[in-house]
Amino acid sequence: MEPPNASNSHCAVEIVTMETEILRVVPPPRRSTLQKLKTRFKETLFPDDPFRQFKGQSSKKKIILGAQYIFPILQWGPKYNLKLLKSDIVSGLTIASLAIPQGISYAKLANLPPIVGLYSSFVPPLVYAVLGSSRDLAVGPVSIASLIMGSMLRQEVSPGKDPILFLQLAFSSTFFAGLFQASLGFLRLGFIIDFLSKATLVGFMAGAAIIVSLQQLKSLLGIENFTKKMGFVPVLSSVFHRTNEWSWQTILMGFCFLLFLLLTRHISKKKPKLFWVSAGAPLLSIILSTLLAFVFKAQNHGISVIGKLQEGLNPPSWNMLQFHGSHLGLVMKTGLVTAIISLTEGIAVGRTFAALKNYQVDGNKEMIAIGLMNIVGSSTSCYVTTGAFSRSAVNHNAGCKTAVSNIIMSVTVMVTLLFLMPLFQYTPNVVLGAIIITAVIGLIDIPAAYRIWKIDKFDFLVLLCAFLGVIFISVQEGLAIAVGISIFKVLLQITRPKAVMLGNIPGTNIFRDLDHYKEALRVPGFLILSIEAPINFANTTYLKDRISRWIEEDEVEDENGKQQSMIKFIILNLSAVSAIDTNGVSFFKDLRMALEKKGLELVLVNPLSEVIEKLLRADDYREFAKPDCMFLTVEEAVAAHFSTIKNQKSPSKPCQKDLLEKITYRV
Amino acid sequence: MEPPNASNSHCAVEIVTMETEILRVVPPPRRSTLQKLKTRFKETLFPDDPFRQFKGQSSKKKIILGAQYIFPILQWGPKYNLKLLKSDIVSGLTIASLAIPQGISYAKLANLPPIVGLYSSFVPPLVYAVLGSSRDLAVGPVSIASLIMGSMLRQEVSPGKDPILFLQLAFSSTFFAGLFQASLGFLRLGFIIDFLSKATLVGFMAGAAIIVSLQQLKSLLGIENFTKKMGFVPVLSSVFHRTNEWSWQTILMGFCFLLFLLLTRHISKKKPKLFWVSAGAPLLSIILSTLLAFVFKAQNHGISVIGKLQEGLNPPSWNMLQFHGSHLGLVMKTGLVTAIISLTEGIAVGRTFAALKNYQVDGNKEMIAIGLMNIVGSSTSCYVTTGAFSRSAVNHNAGCKTAVSNIIMSVTVMVTLLFLMPLFQYTPNVVLGAIIITAVIGLIDIPAAYRIWKIDKFDFLVLLCAFLGVIFISVQEGLAIAVGISIFKVLLQITRPKAVMLGNIPGTNIFRDLDHYKEALRVPGFLILSIEAPINFANTTYLKDRISRWIEEDEVEDENGKQQSMIKFIILNLSAVSAIDTNGVSFFKDLRMALEKKGLELVLVNPLSEVIEKLLRADDYREFAKPDCMFLTVEEAVAAHFSTIKNQKSPSKPCQKDLLEKITYRV
Repeated sequence: MEPPNASNSHCAVEIVTMETEILRVVPPPRRSTLQKLKTRFKETLFPDDPFRQFKGQSSKKKIILGAQYIFPILQWGPKYNLKLLKSDIVSGLTIASLAIPQGISYAKLANLPPIVGLYSSFVPPLVYAVLGSSRDLAVGPVSIASLIMGSMLRQEVSPGKDPILFLQLAFSSTFFAGLFQASLGFLRLGFIIDFLSKATLVGFMAGAAIIVSLQQLKSLLGIENFTKKMGFVPVLSSVFHRTNEWSWQTILMGFCFLLFLLLTRHISKKKPKLFWVSAGAPLLSIILSTLLAFVFKAQNHGISVIGKLQEGLNPPSWNMLQFHGSHLGLVMKTGLVTAIISLTEGIAVGRTFAALKNYQVDGNKEMIAIGLMNIVGSSTSCYVTTGAFSRSAVNHNAGCKTAVSNIIMSVTVMVTLLFLMPLFQYTPNVVLGAIIITAVIGLIDIPAAYRIWKIDKFDFLVLLCAFLGVIFISVQEGLAIAVGISIFKVLLQITRPKAVMLGNIPGTNIFRDLDHYKEALRVPGFLILSIEAPINFANTTYLKDRISRWIEEDEVEDENGKQQSMIKFIILNLSAVSAIDTNGVSFFKDLRMALEKKGLELVLVNPLSEVIEKLLRADDYREFAKPDCMFLTVEEAVAAHFSTIKNQKSPSKPCQKDLLEKITYRV
Repeated sequence: MEPPNASNSHCAVEIVTMETEILRVVPPPRRSTLQKLKTRFKETLFPDDPFRQFKGQSSKKKIILGAQYIFPILQWGPKYNLKLLKSDIVSGLTIASLAIPQGISYAKLANLPPIVGLYSSFVPPLVYAVLGSSRDLAVGPVSIASLIMGSMLRQEVSPGKDPILFLQLAFSSTFFAGLFQASLGFLRLGFIIDFLSKATLVGFMAGAAIIVSLQQLKSLLGIENFTKKMGFVPVLSSVFHRTNEWSWQTILMGFCFLLFLLLTRHISKKKPKLFWVSAGAPLLSIILSTLLAFVFKAQNHGISVIGKLQEGLNPPSWNMLQFHGSHLGLVMKTGLVTAIISLTEGIAVGRTFAALKNYQVDGNKEMIAIGLMNIVGSSTSCYVTTGAFSRSAVNHNAGCKTAVSNIIMSVTVMVTLLFLMPLFQYTPNVVLGAIIITAVIGLIDIPAAYRIWKIDKFDFLVLLCAFLGVIFISVQEGLAIAVGISIFKVLLQITRPKAVMLGNIPGTNIFRDLDHYKEALRVPGFLILSIEAPINFANTTYLKDRISRWIEEDEVEDENGKQQSMIKFIILNLSAVSAIDTNGVSFFKDLRMALEKKGLELVLVNPLSEVIEKLLRADDYREFAKPDCMFLTVEEAVAAHFSTIKNQKSPSKPCQKDLLEKITYRV
């Protein structure tokens, strides 16, 4: 609470006057509406400028580049050699050993016949190898998309009562998912998946993992009449109301294999070099348990097994796609939700490993690749697939070099489909359940949740809503609630933009937030504000209220009991106002008029090009472009008006000088 | 395209080094989560700090202030005098002469008995006079809210077939509208109405005016079997398919009165002093037309008249409110939509005239006043009311001083209700139609639409969507579409935040947008970027892509054909980044690591308090708080690293110096 150090304020003045002339704010170079529209269009849809590489190339080179752009295999294919192949064979076989048991398990999670999971691990990886730009992505069915598809379709059709119809809907949903994904990529609308924030995903994944694990209690406990619902409460109540159906043999077997799988997972997590321990464990479990079941005739002891599986490659399924009928709405909705969720997973995984190996993954191109892969898949008996996180990590650790590892995996699955299917006849379902639990348990990321709690409490709220919503309401509604809250937060930030009061840092010409930099001092006679958001319809009312409150807070009663303002100039630093709309234009006009009525002057600092353009077009710019109304920096604005304050000896306001001294300079 | 002027870059360095020491970025003062939550809560819900005046007052004074806060009448009541009363009587009688014909007309617009319009002009103004803080607002039924209520309720109940039920639903909707309004005010959620931008309102109002006018074709042409629909197409088709029902006497009468009313409107618009011409015209038209109809027995010539109206004051209607039953959903929805629309009108009107007379209107308090007025209204046979724009303008022009003018109006309406009702028996409906058209035609604001077109094309698109949506789809859907597009625009701004490249303005230490200030020059070896939005989940991917594109654009091939970057330092000016979330924190970490891989250094400039806090909590601050990684201004960051660039003679990169000279300094 001390009067301002006069030399400080002087200092700002001196530094500015050292420069030969005050810089003027100028309107930006004129551009037509069309040009601006083009720029905005490009920034919105083509921020990565994908056609940059074509510029200034010969037409022959352009064709080659174009083909390489569409089919990345043409980029790395010609340079492919035996050394790379060796690495890819190792990694390909490794992920195949994981893909086969997981494929069977995830198909069951989606309420589909187990063999569909294997079909889906055969065709899509081949398509992706040709079209995809990630070198590490291991393509196939994934747990969350399987869960969502299964639970959404089950709302209308029972997979037990009407398996053919259910399969038709699953393929049709896959088709629509692919169509949505490819369209998002073609239309360059990939940013839609950005609306799933990290907090949403952490919460959603954890919730989904728990829902998935709870579903496995059916096979782990050997319950036959399990609830068809997904929620936390109905599943647990079903579990404890059917204790008579629990089968101790199943529980024993499940417990042993679950322990084994979790142990191998723990080993590989501790020592990433031992990735093959956890990668090979599921296949080993399948082989072991199948042998056990075969030898001891498990099905006679209450342990259910997969049963007979058909041999042979994917049958065509385009005749099963349904584009009309009463379930079309559900199919499209399921397609949309699984499309977005599987894109989010696939692209996040691709970007993660691309960043590790320092190469680029183009989000929109990846969407087209994943989308086409699902469209092709839907007509070859595959359900929705994407890049799986766990398998891609194994792929990466196993030293994969290119998408050839996907081809190797695909060939291995093909061999399985052709010759090894009878072997799975005796595989106990309980082991599949254990494999799924081990796979999804990694989705519960407690350290990430803790980090989010530490950094941003609001984000944690979003996480919690996603988590609880998924567990207690439903998978898709939990997701919708979390996205809604995230967007609401963004809108709230716009509605209540940050506006801070600036002060001069003594000894410099720098003006900073008084609350942040405690050494900063207010300049007498000035109210210097910085608005840190676009000014638009959602916040003009707030800003008007807020500014008038600041002005009132600086008013003191003079000897006649009248409110007298101790400030003469309101300086608005607009450096951070990146855009305004028509309401924003009115805001400036209204504010200037309101201040004039109070005898205060409005000074703008560093309006950006869009703000100037809009003011110009509204014919309001003239008012602000008057001398001493617009400056390039705060210090210039203060320097230009500082003498007015100091020399003010207006006889009509004799107390102005006293008032000036009463002001609290330090906030 | 010229190499940089060395002295320019030097200049920046010299100015900075003039200061004795480089200022450090410091973390903001520590505040607990609770404190921050409190501040945010206050800024979000109490930006106007309504309890400011209570601070430091004695408890007796506090009680008086509190009572005055709740009942503004206690504020101005004691100072009320005869002079003010005279003005208020003149203005009160003037608006009464407008309120009576409009009340009858608007009730018909809402498909309600005409007398309900008069009831609604009696009780609510009295309530508002006690609770409201605006001195100019003339309270009563308004055209748009009447239209919306009528059209929404008619979706489920026919006012012709089941008039009692329709009336019950109207009162119940009014109750819910009042409840929503008062709750918004109590919960300080008034900012919800801010989401109706000016563009939305201009388009919506114009569309609604056309829909309302089209509805009047029924009475203007004398058609009896008119369509029950509201849309442009069904109404016009109904009009031209029923030419046989057109009555020339009605058309003649309607045309004459419409012409007369429009003429008086034109006169008052040209000369605001002659406001009484247009203010008195509707009542005069009613009197004249009623006389004509009575003398010539109009109903025998195909001119329909209002018919017998009940005498007496508002009967109680709380027994008609319905809080259950099959229509509850519709009633609540209607209440919500009319609540928001009528709040928007009432508060906008109140604010407009408050600004003209330089007094404050508290939005949230107004909401409570309007809400309570509607709750009271709903149990005294009134339908939804608010501050009407046209009548408030007349009130203002007629020289009203306080809310007493509303009381005068109310008393006049009371006298009418008690004694003058039989006089309206012969009033022709066609004149009511003409009065409505004249009233709503002012809602079509073509100059405002042109202004919006000139300033902001996107806002114009919003306007157009609201307009066409209202005309061709429905009133509420048109509104919803326009609000949706407005919010989408805001989200798009967040998803594609402005990020610009800065350059030094020669001869100064100022760094500004290179596209805007053509004299600005790039500093060799530096990429100086300014991000102008909060960094959050919706834009981190975009920003990463965009920044890596800038870096790649600065790469040139060296003699070995390898890509070599010509920049050493990326300076991110964060002055405009008002907030980050957990994704934003990861963004900084990922960016720093990606740049390190390319041998580039990331330097942050002026991170604001929230950004520093989040980085601190994520333990990432340490990395950035290293010397030479964070500066308070761009010039200091450049100065600190400039010598590195100049003296760089690293033997491992012999071509670095050549490369530096190849750079395009001017963008």
